[in-house]
Amino acid sequence: MKGVILDIVPEAQIVDISHAVQPFDVLDGALTISQAYSYFPSATVHLVVVDPGVGTARRPIIASSDKYHFVAPDNGVLSLIYAQEERMSVRHISSDHYFLQPVSNTFHARDIFSPVAAYLAKQVDSHKFGDEIEDYARFAAPKPKAAGENRMRAVVLKVDRFGNLITNITPKDAPMLFGADPVPFKLVVGNKEITVIRQLYAEGAAGEVFAIMGSMGFLEIAANRGAAAQITGAGKGSEVSIILSEGAAAGKGA
Amino acid sequence: MKGVILDIVPEAQIVDISHAVQPFDVLDGALTISQAYSYFPSATVHLVVVDPGVGTARRPIIASSDKYHFVAPDNGVLSLIYAQEERMSVRHISSDHYFLQPVSNTFHARDIFSPVAAYLAKQVDSHKFGDEIEDYARFAAPKPKAAGENRMRAVVLKVDRFGNLITNITPKDAPMLFGADPVPFKLVVGNKEITVIRQLYAEGAAGEVFAIMGSMGFLEIAANRGAAAQITGAGKGSEVSIILSEGAAAGKGA
Amino acid sequence: MKGVILDIVPEAQIVDISHAVQPFDVLDGALTISQAYSYFPSATVHLVVVDPGVGTARRPIIASSDKYHFVAPDNGVLSLIYAQEERMSVRHISSDHYFLQPVSNTFHARDIFSPVAAYLAKQVDSHKFGDEIEDYARFAAPKPKAAGENRMRAVVLKVDRFGNLITNITPKDAPMLFGADPVPFKLVVGNKEITVIRQLYAEGAAGEVFAIMGSMGFLEIAANRGAAAQITGAGKGSEVSIILSEGAAAGKGA
Repeated sequence: MKGVILDIVPEAQIVDISHAVQPFDVLDGALTISQAYSYFPSATVHLVVVDPGVGTARRPIIASSDKYHFVAPDNGVLSLIYAQEERMSVRHISSDHYFLQPVSNTFHARDIFSPVAAYLAKQVDSHKFGDEIEDYARFAAPKPKAAGENRMRAVVLKVDRFGNLITNITPKDAPMLFGADPVPFKLVVGNKEITVIRQLYAEGAAGEVFAIMGSMGFLEIAANRGAAAQITGAGKGSEVSIILSEGAAAGKGA
Repeated sequence: MKGVILDIVPEAQIVDISHAVQPFDVLDGALTISQAYSYFPSATVHLVVVDPGVGTARRPIIASSDKYHFVAPDNGVLSLIYAQEERMSVRHISSDHYFLQPVSNTFHARDIFSPVAAYLAKQVDSHKFGDEIEDYARFAAPKPKAAGENRMRAVVLKVDRFGNLITNITPKDAPMLFGADPVPFKLVVGNKEITVIRQLYAEGAAGEVFAIMGSMGFLEIAANRGAAAQITGAGKGSEVSIILSEGAAAGKGA
Repeated sequence: MKGVILDIVPEAQIVDISHAVQPFDVLDGALTISQAYSYFPSATVHLVVVDPGVGTARRPIIASSDKYHFVAPDNGVLSLIYAQEERMSVRHISSDHYFLQPVSNTFHARDIFSPVAAYLAKQVDSHKFGDEIEDYARFAAPKPKAAGENRMRAVVLKVDRFGNLITNITPKDAPMLFGADPVPFKLVVGNKEITVIRQLYAEGAAGEVFAIMGSMGFLEIAANRGAAAQITGAGKGSEVSIILSEGAAAGKGA
């Protein structure tokens, strides 16, 4: 892929955002790009190919905001970008003279997405690649759900390289946990119960598992210099139960 | 290595092709570079150091085609390049004033190969590094072999990051499997029997293991959104038996 | 982090030195940067963030030598640089108008260290970031210790990607092992005894575990085309006993 890009635009500055997106995991790809894209310079082309449907009828697309282009398969991998950006125009890439010929059935990242990203980086206008579409695929990231009067059910979205469990709980989803006067609560994750939200990873005692607002905007389950995933036995997809003390209503923000 | 290169040619555009070549595995290195090199711009210098014999009498070499230079130990890691490129000139690197002094016994990638690659990128003429040689090391990649009248024996060359098993079967080696009217066959890999060649990864049913022509030019054993390596229990070096229906002659193309 | 840097200095040449520093492991970070930094071009900014205390009172610092700037948390991760460089000036980074606002509690690599490194790369003078300090944190790398008359006790500092065990033994620490007339010795590592120092990885017989002076300046325990870590059962932090033949005094150089 990098060879293809550099052959078209030799002065390209290519950056790998992550080497750890899980195979076939469109949500993991969606989370990864949504956390990183906004820090890049204006006019960056983001190439986002998690593509288990390569070769099928799923369309290749360019999604453009005021600042960026995103080149991706139309399988929802840009869903969290659509949710964050006010105005996006999405095009179905159909101008196959920009593709690397012959196009394989199994490696469109090399044959379609990389050359298109390169030509965009070379200032080829996005409307030259195909027509605008409205019916592009998108999904909502899973949200915590009310589960009885004083309970919510959340989930671990991913495990980072430190072993922190990134949940899908945001301050908006569970406002009663945050703010100046939080409601007493219990989080049940794997084989552990957590009752404390800390401000810093280093505040926790050795072996203690706690919650913390992470830099991704989600509540994380973490341990000071330790891997919460290992300590709790939980991992990606594990359920996180939020149990509020009686009298506090759950699910308000959901 | 990258520091050494940038100190000599600060404007170098350095690209990592893979972080997953197996230690000491010259064939894995050979496969990796052979799949990627031709997509890079003209005049790219490919630095290919899988070097279990570092410090021994094995020679450092520059192999040059019309478009590229390859800098490598002379241990066969360029064998698949020699097989693909019509005309190559190979030189024994002996001009040690290009080396990083003192040269260690254990890290020629840093002390010899990186500075030579950098000076090549800086347009130093390849003939300045040493004399042309003819007796450079090369090996043939393992080919499927006939094993009785209706059988062939192939092998898994590598497992990719999706868990696909890359076999050494090409259309040329087993033409009866491909084309408009393929002979019925059975592939035995690990604990699975495969009777279908699919065109797309996404065509397979959940849990189904099938064969597919991969972007590397080899037949792969794959699963839709799954890891064939895990499902079959096979891995690098595992045998792949090709059993043809009676009446079809095996091994024609080998 | 890379997005933040490129947004400030789009022409930056960003190089990843390693993707394998262990989480929370300040010594591993210190070893990694100390091995690599001196090969980079003059004026390189080295960004070194192993930061288990992110958000606490530990200071962000810039350490400058004649050739380089290092941007890091003040937790000792630059200790081996201080030991190698004659003259360093160290500043406490306090000019928060260079930071990415709002600064998170949990990701200073993105919000503080990356933008400061980028502005340094953009030639902003280091004195603009804060005042010089003298009481910066530093630790000594663990040295081999005498353990009785003919014994020393060393340790495995890290395991490299080939499975080599990098010990903390240098020629200065154990001069009797090196030189023209070395004293007979025995190294006990995991379940193996080693009595040979080899010059080349490839000199060892199959399955043999031996010692070798590595390119990092430390004695390594290695195996020819094999993983010494696996063969010996030893790993990071494992004890290495050095037992000298009688009559040779241990610990001279320590």
